[in-house]
Amino acid sequence: MPSITVLGAGSWGTALSVVLADNNHQVTLWGRSADSAREINENHTNVKYLPGVLLPETIQATNDLQEALKGSDTILLVVPTKAMRDILKDIKSNLERPVTFVHASKGIEPETYLRVSEIIEEEIPENLRKAVVVLSGPSHAEEVSTRQPTTVTSSSVNMKAAEFVQDLFMNTNFRVYTNPDLIGVEIGGSLKNIIALGAGMTSGLGYGDNAKAALMTRGLAEIARLGMKLGAKPMTFAGLSGLGDLIVTCTSVHSRNWRAGNMIGKGRTVPEVLEEMGMVVEGIRTTKAAYQLASLEKVDMPITSGLYDVLFNGKEPEAAVEELMGRVKKHEVEDLKLGETDPLNDMEP
Amino acid sequence: MPSITVLGAGSWGTALSVVLADNNHQVTLWGRSADSAREINENHTNVKYLPGVLLPETIQATNDLQEALKGSDTILLVVPTKAMRDILKDIKSNLERPVTFVHASKGIEPETYLRVSEIIEEEIPENLRKAVVVLSGPSHAEEVSTRQPTTVTSSSVNMKAAEFVQDLFMNTNFRVYTNPDLIGVEIGGSLKNIIALGAGMTSGLGYGDNAKAALMTRGLAEIARLGMKLGAKPMTFAGLSGLGDLIVTCTSVHSRNWRAGNMIGKGRTVPEVLEEMGMVVEGIRTTKAAYQLASLEKVDMPITSGLYDVLFNGKEPEAAVEELMGRVKKHEVEDLKLGETDPLNDMEP
Repeated sequence: MPSITVLGAGSWGTALSVVLADNNHQVTLWGRSADSAREINENHTNVKYLPGVLLPETIQATNDLQEALKGSDTILLVVPTKAMRDILKDIKSNLERPVTFVHASKGIEPETYLRVSEIIEEEIPENLRKAVVVLSGPSHAEEVSTRQPTTVTSSSVNMKAAEFVQDLFMNTNFRVYTNPDLIGVEIGGSLKNIIALGAGMTSGLGYGDNAKAALMTRGLAEIARLGMKLGAKPMTFAGLSGLGDLIVTCTSVHSRNWRAGNMIGKGRTVPEVLEEMGMVVEGIRTTKAAYQLASLEKVDMPITSGLYDVLFNGKEPEAAVEELMGRVKKHEVEDLKLGETDPLNDMEP
Repeated sequence: MPSITVLGAGSWGTALSVVLADNNHQVTLWGRSADSAREINENHTNVKYLPGVLLPETIQATNDLQEALKGSDTILLVVPTKAMRDILKDIKSNLERPVTFVHASKGIEPETYLRVSEIIEEEIPENLRKAVVVLSGPSHAEEVSTRQPTTVTSSSVNMKAAEFVQDLFMNTNFRVYTNPDLIGVEIGGSLKNIIALGAGMTSGLGYGDNAKAALMTRGLAEIARLGMKLGAKPMTFAGLSGLGDLIVTCTSVHSRNWRAGNMIGKGRTVPEVLEEMGMVVEGIRTTKAAYQLASLEKVDMPITSGLYDVLFNGKEPEAAVEELMGRVKKHEVEDLKLGETDPLNDMEP
């Protein structure tokens, strides 16, 4: 019976602990709050993040990191990308032997432009890690914790490790596919939060479903453009961790990125929104990182760029969305070309 | 000032008439109902199909086809695919000179497997048609008629004709892109209705957003697979008339295909649903045609196939959706490959 340590007792970390406990794994769930750990151990609930859900009694919670890591074979990281480096430094000083690192966090680090798997590789020496795997896909925590059917992707440069993680999580309600394109899976999962912010913002401004669908279509194209420049495979963006996750994040009532964008569209300021939500809105930091990365790589990302101006340069949301929806241009051909390096172009007549 | 005849005074034909009238074209809107024509001419409303919308006074409605076609340069067909051949026969016997045919109908004809542009070419002799163009994309009629921002695709094998149609419709709220891939645009627009039925059905059965996103992702992959076998370009399915239209149809409260699927998921029979909706549900006929075509072309379309069994073979929706969501399979790799003829496969390692 594998022993797994889940780091991060928010909604997603708790929901993934439910899946692992359902599969009869020994799960230790770590979070910073002693009260929350006590609530999980005694009441088997996490009311703040998963109201109404009764957790399996086998989930053991703690706020002591050293205790959480003891005897663990696998560490599942479900902390905000912003907190990733600090927690990895703490892990490193408590690890006695190499473990498999799995992460289910979505984001790109501003300034370094690193994906989460790269941050893990930077912070954890090779002799302490067996492999690094990402778990990503269309998966609202609320639905996973109530055992609604969900499909996700497990990806790693080490396919044996990706399959190990697939085996850990796979059950009747939670289906896991493997995909060797680690870059594509991490980029798709991270950057869809930018488009979700944009979709929320357009709705907040009063635009309808037609505009949202156009924004999402263009959004996936610009994500794929950047991803391919970084070495991702185009088909990954058409899959669960790309298109699938984009759909669920942009169209569902659960998405915090969508809700944040929506409030901004309705006239609230970014600091107000962050304070009111009381949760991490990954898309805001990711917008900054993706904007910087797109400039560096010379990839055209109009939606990311427009959102960057709203979030960090005080641009009016209305002006940004009007520009995104575009002005009237005659004889414009629909052109989703994915950049100069795009092999898809070779197929065009 | 071009003179355009719009055939079909349902929600979409009326909404497109609004766009054309906004662009100062002379619009004659034909429908079978004399009462409806009178209502449009006298009250400038079409309460049955676009409640709450005041139409431009320049739209002239009639239920006399001969009168409607008199002096027309362009015919816009917005009738159910089922009624297409009959109306084309009537048009043919009333046409005095060649005109441009534009259609905004979505469907594939069962038994013949013809797309709408092919039906037009079969029924209208070459000396009576200048060109055949399709207008398609994420565009709920309700939003178009109230001038919400919308983007669509104009496609034809004759790019000059596609650009002519782009010019006819383009304005600040209604953006038109051209795309030369007529097959891809027609297949994407038609087959997304199948996935919308499926999405409605899963929701009707109580499945959540995670399952819907997975279904839509897999659905677009199977549409692209069939489309490419028929000669479509893969990028078209990632664009407005593919992904964009799929999103708006599967996630919006306005979609009649989604609503029909939803009622079926909740236990209503197909005839009950058709009677209650009082509108054409294109997806039901298209499911039959696509199922037949996929069998003929030997293309794997599990969602279409499952829905076909529910709609035409009395299969329980629950059993079909459970099969679609899949059983537990170990070591399944996410594989969206688009068929043997797929050039995308060449890019994979």
